[in-house]
Amino acid sequence: MEIASLGKVGLTDRLTEQLIVRNASTFRGAGNDAAVLHYADKEALFASQLLLEGIHFDLTYFALKLVGYKAANACFSKIYAMNGQARQLSLNLGISKRFSVENIDELFLGIEYACERHGVDIVAVDTSASLTGLTIALSCVGEAERQQIVYRNGAQINDLLCVSGDLGAAYMGLQLLEREKAVHTGDSDFTPDFSGKEYLLERQLRPEARKDIIEILAKNQILPTAMIAVCDGLTSDLLHLCRASKVGCVVYEEHLPIDYQTAMMAERFNMNLTAVALNGGDDYELLFTVPLTMHEKIQAIDGVKLIGHIVSADNGANLIARDGSQIPLTAQAWTQVSDNE
Amino acid sequence: MEIASLGKVGLTDRLTEQLIVRNASTFRGAGNDAAVLHYADKEALFASQLLLEGIHFDLTYFALKLVGYKAANACFSKIYAMNGQARQLSLNLGISKRFSVENIDELFLGIEYACERHGVDIVAVDTSASLTGLTIALSCVGEAERQQIVYRNGAQINDLLCVSGDLGAAYMGLQLLEREKAVHTGDSDFTPDFSGKEYLLERQLRPEARKDIIEILAKNQILPTAMIAVCDGLTSDLLHLCRASKVGCVVYEEHLPIDYQTAMMAERFNMNLTAVALNGGDDYELLFTVPLTMHEKIQAIDGVKLIGHIVSADNGANLIARDGSQIPLTAQAWTQVSDNE
Repeated sequence: MEIASLGKVGLTDRLTEQLIVRNASTFRGAGNDAAVLHYADKEALFASQLLLEGIHFDLTYFALKLVGYKAANACFSKIYAMNGQARQLSLNLGISKRFSVENIDELFLGIEYACERHGVDIVAVDTSASLTGLTIALSCVGEAERQQIVYRNGAQINDLLCVSGDLGAAYMGLQLLEREKAVHTGDSDFTPDFSGKEYLLERQLRPEARKDIIEILAKNQILPTAMIAVCDGLTSDLLHLCRASKVGCVVYEEHLPIDYQTAMMAERFNMNLTAVALNGGDDYELLFTVPLTMHEKIQAIDGVKLIGHIVSADNGANLIARDGSQIPLTAQAWTQVSDNE
Repeated sequence: MEIASLGKVGLTDRLTEQLIVRNASTFRGAGNDAAVLHYADKEALFASQLLLEGIHFDLTYFALKLVGYKAANACFSKIYAMNGQARQLSLNLGISKRFSVENIDELFLGIEYACERHGVDIVAVDTSASLTGLTIALSCVGEAERQQIVYRNGAQINDLLCVSGDLGAAYMGLQLLEREKAVHTGDSDFTPDFSGKEYLLERQLRPEARKDIIEILAKNQILPTAMIAVCDGLTSDLLHLCRASKVGCVVYEEHLPIDYQTAMMAERFNMNLTAVALNGGDDYELLFTVPLTMHEKIQAIDGVKLIGHIVSADNGANLIARDGSQIPLTAQAWTQVSDNE
């Protein structure tokens, strides 16, 4: 069905009609110029995310449902990085003539599925024509107790540096998809064999914001001193955290969490595995610091790895390589390897 | 200066360094994954807006500072339409290679100027590359006492239908600019003579969200029963309000507020003036209903016009023409005249 046959109002109505309210803080959801949110007892967290076709996703290998799912998770990850819970999402779409009503339904389904899994209400939907491609603008409101909010600027000297999950897999998934795309250019049917590389693809195509880590930390009564979402690559985001906290850091190459599929693909593509782990984007993991006294507690948590510690700012930010040599972690190295500029 | 020379981090830092906090509800502004907002006593309003180059603005005749100013005002108008005050704004930009750092500074200046005038804090700035053109995604959080919030669905039978300002001028301004652009195609220097048409251009290029109307209504202790921002043209937004309130309406052609410049240009372009007033977009005025008992109070307010009244849903939504004939107001007529799809 052509979008023109429904019109902007019809399309927006079609999407908003199915909305469900899951949270008490959603006092009034979609249907007015603004949603009304009730945050009397807690602080409201406010984050946003813009995803552009051709920059943040390529529809050659990205199903629209997955684009929606990833977009929502990318936005939620910012709320989790504050140690909060995501609650409300607003959605603005710019849609070119290439897309049908069914396409937008599929995209919306992916967003709504992410919202269902994360307990989030979609409280505003707006659509607009676009000259080229698909534009997805999301904003998320979340909640946290003031005392529980974690900022980027709280890291202290001697704090332990921790990261959830593993690094570089989403970036290797992207490399894999890009290379297959280059090989298959001109094929109308893009269905390469990805067996044995499923994890890399899943990390690129279906990332999951780490709500679970926030919950595990709370359960173990661990309040990080500083935290940031790893979106642009570990180095870039780590340097953000260090700069905000006015500290330096030491990261041990041997402690970087890397999945074996990531390692195998780096080997096959003749890429430097450590550079992939440090600079590959789209991980959507959480990087955080905890006091040294939390050492045992953190080590007991599955899915969180100690990768180094905080030092004074004048020591800079450095990687200790496997051979013991010290390599400065440099800003924006990620722009060389990540497509997610 | 090329944006590539600063990089994403450098550009974002450049923009966020200058941010000022104006509101107590901005507990923590830019610099973390999410801003922290404190809305303990009031409800938080949440609205967003997406503006795409070539769809919502044309840089042939739009200075970037004005684009920024208009974008912010468009977003604020949604908060005012809930009878709230705009407080925080988040900003995501998609920027193609065509734009320089100075261009983005100019755009940001326009947004910040609008924020200054409306008492709003910019609490998040993020930038991304874009394949084509400029993408501006804004989200706004505002505040209101729960009892003061006005929705679209509160209009009652016999309520008076009121609109602020005048209608169709922004649309005529757009027509003027588009026609001049067509005439001047190929000219490197686009400086036509617009004397005597300044108001139309100002309404298109530099709209002002009606914070003043919200304040005047409060001062006069008038609480509308329903309200909506007039963005897509009076008819489209009036039908939204009627549908939400499950009512019909009568609008009198002779009471439509129209500036004399709008009328003169419609005459000159041989366009139907009433159609322009009813369907032209980009007015950013407020359309609202008040109880019949407010008749005298409303009439005493400068800049607000009574244009009709609410009837039962089975009477439909109709225009009473100057000759007394009744014409149904039809949905989406705006798509025929407005470029702001």
